[in-house]
Amino acid sequence: MSQHETPADPTPRSPTSTRRVLLGSAIATVGGAAAIGLAGGGLGARPSPPSPPEEVVPVFGAHQAGVDTPQQRYAMLVAADLTVGDAGALRRLLRDLTATIARITRGEDPPPSPLFRDGAVVPTDFATGLPPSRLTVTVGVGPAVFDLPGVGEPPPRRLRPLPEFEGDALDPRWAGGDLLLQICADDPQVVSAAMRSLRARIPGYARLRWTQSGFLSTPVDGGTPRNMFGHKDGTSNPRPGSAELEQTVWARDDEPAWFAGGTYLVFRKIRMRTADWDLTPRDEQDAVIGRRRSDGAPLTGREEHDEPDLEATAGGRPVIAADAHVRRVRGFSMLRRSYSYDYGQLIATAGGEPDPTAATQEHEHAPGTPEHTHGGHGALDVGLLFCAYGNDPDAQFVAAQRRSAAADRLNRFVTHTGSAIFAVLPGCSPEGYLGETLLRTPTLG
Amino acid sequence: MSQHETPADPTPRSPTSTRRVLLGSAIATVGGAAAIGLAGGGLGARPSPPSPPEEVVPVFGAHQAGVDTPQQRYAMLVAADLTVGDAGALRRLLRDLTATIARITRGEDPPPSPLFRDGAVVPTDFATGLPPSRLTVTVGVGPAVFDLPGVGEPPPRRLRPLPEFEGDALDPRWAGGDLLLQICADDPQVVSAAMRSLRARIPGYARLRWTQSGFLSTPVDGGTPRNMFGHKDGTSNPRPGSAELEQTVWARDDEPAWFAGGTYLVFRKIRMRTADWDLTPRDEQDAVIGRRRSDGAPLTGREEHDEPDLEATAGGRPVIAADAHVRRVRGFSMLRRSYSYDYGQLIATAGGEPDPTAATQEHEHAPGTPEHTHGGHGALDVGLLFCAYGNDPDAQFVAAQRRSAAADRLNRFVTHTGSAIFAVLPGCSPEGYLGETLLRTPTLG
Ligand code: HEM
Ligand code: HEM
Repeated sequence: MSQHETPADPTPRSPTSTRRVLLGSAIATVGGAAAIGLAGGGLGARPSPPSPPEEVVPVFGAHQAGVDTPQQRYAMLVAADLTVGDAGALRRLLRDLTATIARITRGEDPPPSPLFRDGAVVPTDFATGLPPSRLTVTVGVGPAVFDLPGVGEPPPRRLRPLPEFEGDALDPRWAGGDLLLQICADDPQVVSAAMRSLRARIPGYARLRWTQSGFLSTPVDGGTPRNMFGHKDGTSNPRPGSAELEQTVWARDDEPAWFAGGTYLVFRKIRMRTADWDLTPRDEQDAVIGRRRSDGAPLTGREEHDEPDLEATAGGRPVIAADAHVRRVRGFSMLRRSYSYDYGQLIATAGGEPDPTAATQEHEHAPGTPEHTHGGHGALDVGLLFCAYGNDPDAQFVAAQRRSAAADRLNRFVTHTGSAIFAVLPGCSPEGYLGETLLRTPTLG
Repeated sequence: MSQHETPADPTPRSPTSTRRVLLGSAIATVGGAAAIGLAGGGLGARPSPPSPPEEVVPVFGAHQAGVDTPQQRYAMLVAADLTVGDAGALRRLLRDLTATIARITRGEDPPPSPLFRDGAVVPTDFATGLPPSRLTVTVGVGPAVFDLPGVGEPPPRRLRPLPEFEGDALDPRWAGGDLLLQICADDPQVVSAAMRSLRARIPGYARLRWTQSGFLSTPVDGGTPRNMFGHKDGTSNPRPGSAELEQTVWARDDEPAWFAGGTYLVFRKIRMRTADWDLTPRDEQDAVIGRRRSDGAPLTGREEHDEPDLEATAGGRPVIAADAHVRRVRGFSMLRRSYSYDYGQLIATAGGEPDPTAATQEHEHAPGTPEHTHGGHGALDVGLLFCAYGNDPDAQFVAAQRRSAAADRLNRFVTHTGSAIFAVLPGCSPEGYLGETLLRTPTLG
């Protein structure tokens, strides 16, 4: 058809460069107080709101960034399996990753790499035009790393594969891994660019195993973010800078010396049955958690940060039920740093099995509705990328999860489908590299 | 083991409510000029930046919102297949969706529904504590809707399934659909909440077919956002409010009367081979597009909004190559309103086939690297959720895509894997409902 070869609207477009408002770089320094006019480009896309002044999170120090760093808004977790044969190659990889992380977290391009054609080609501008957005990349290693020939140091004392828990429906597609990169930033395109910059360093050293992506939105009042069940989540976390956090998170004195300043990360992909939850009366939702969805206060308290009173009774029955989530897990310290995920129907559509335990949403049919199947209901995958940092996974996560798995009223609504544990490497100085204490004297390479 | 039943750290936590800064609702009204202190809850999550004052996008009018609305930062596209038997049931669904959209875009809870147990239960607080975030929901219908018994009106004249294009590698997993919901907002949790509120109206009427999720980040200078190849994307789009946009987008006079104020949406899921792209020299990247990646200017111009000069030559050869993307598609008007996506390895890991045409990233191996396979390289799925609005898909998208498919230098780097076309319904008044002109006098129901 001739219309296919003829421009539909040959009228030349008027130059629009005069409409462009050049705001310069002033914005980046004004921080939270600037208002920006409408974009000049494209469909007049709304500019991102101005970024706070402290865009760059320092990555060097006793600990890695991304653990006690206030949570950024987006995260991608990337697990990989090592394909290197010895500690020397692992050292080269970690040196290169450290150099890359140091640069991209400052908003600079990644360094050249011998992996790239022509030696010196930088493979990607780092997130051109976007601020560093508090990017952090946190590196962990899985249990198998310590079997690598030439790794002379012992594994962290508490790095053991997680046990099976009652109700687990784990899927090998998102379980395990030798290497973890937790990439967090306040902008999803910066997370994506970081992933690309890091992935480009990996061929020949490791193979991607799984990735997960999440977000966390903070209410306008600046309060605790809500999870996909609408509850405030993170209320009883240890506070940044507190002694409790120090004692909960960072490696204990009885760990191998090389691990000082490190921690453990337990990852669980937890599917949340939002359709069932949404049809559950509010009172019951509150009873399931032991806290009010409205304001996050414990059922025994008035304000979010009141301590739950597990002894309180009303009419002879505990106010916070025996199987309420907060009762089951209370007293087990850990630093939860989780992200919500909403994969819609992506995974089910891609050929992945929907969660076999997914309940069918109960509903009435509108009058006159013909017969139909309900194939789509269980196919949505929405939930929590649960991330818990702590220095004693057995006494912290494992103990809590045992108690929860046995009798948590929340279990009706959630299914653990992914799982992994990593030793998060100690931090390093600008002259050093992540893993230096572990690999200082590899017997090979 | 006894440690599993003993709290690791039984020290009672100190109440932290005094640290909480109650900022009240002042922020929401101050808009772009407010600075917010650090969060009181959780891990001290960084509060979202203050939202601009015009949080609510009005949804009623001659056209639906979400077409010429400046692009929000997040989008979920939801395609469903109707399971209703006649136009009367479709009308009930569209009435209900309209009422839901009207409320949730204002930040209000969705209305009760006869589908929910107990009749009056509102299934989900709408994104508690988050601003409306310029949420829009745009509703389209696929070709099959017009075969429904009782739909008395003719289909839009130009609503035809898209033809096959050279190089297409379409996957039925993300193609087609009877109903489209394009959900856009500046916050991903608001998009997710909207999806949930809408999905809850659907059982008995339609079954989810596919979902896709994307983002769009705007540079600090407020300029045109960049796609996953790092190029500014959207530069030559018709401007909001321009005559060009009016003429390009909204239904022409020769369409059935009921369609006045409507438009067409062409969706393509386009995978972008970022690893290959990142290893391509910058000059060649610029030549592929015909514009400079650095500043978006055409190769023949100095500034982003200079008109490309397709006649210009240097040394006897065209400056903008014969197969440069902008030359192939130039002159075909459409309103591109696309989002980037980064699914990492989710789909491949879930059991979906990675793109069979995915090229293997070429690279050198670090010295001493043992034999290894490259399974992971092709498994990343990153690209563009290409969305083009226009009033003549044949003369606009189809014609452009024919020319592009035949000889676009970009084709080496991209693969079209998903495809759908929808008639986007006209807008309606607050008293009406989306689809009212189409279904005003259904012969059934
Ligand atoms: C999708 C699954 C889960 C949901 C929806 C959920 C939700 C919540 C909520 C709403 C709270 C109260 C607010 C707060 O203090 O943060 C809470 C507390 C807590 N959760 Fe979970 N949680 C989930 C899984 C887990 C898992 C797997 C663990 C570890 C085994 C865990 C450990 C804790 C701990 C330790 C607390 C603090 C209890 C306290 O000291 O008061 N949660 N959770
Ligand atoms: C992933 C695939 C694609 C990429 C990376 C891409 C990239 C770009 C870039 C960088 C520009 C120049 C900036 C601008 O004017 O927006 C552009 C322009 C354009 N693209 Fe694409 N594009 C893609 C797919 C498509 C498709 C499938 C179509 C439709 C068939 C299309 C139609 C257009 C049009 C009409 C223009 C404006 C040309 C002009 O008038 O100057 N693009 N594209």
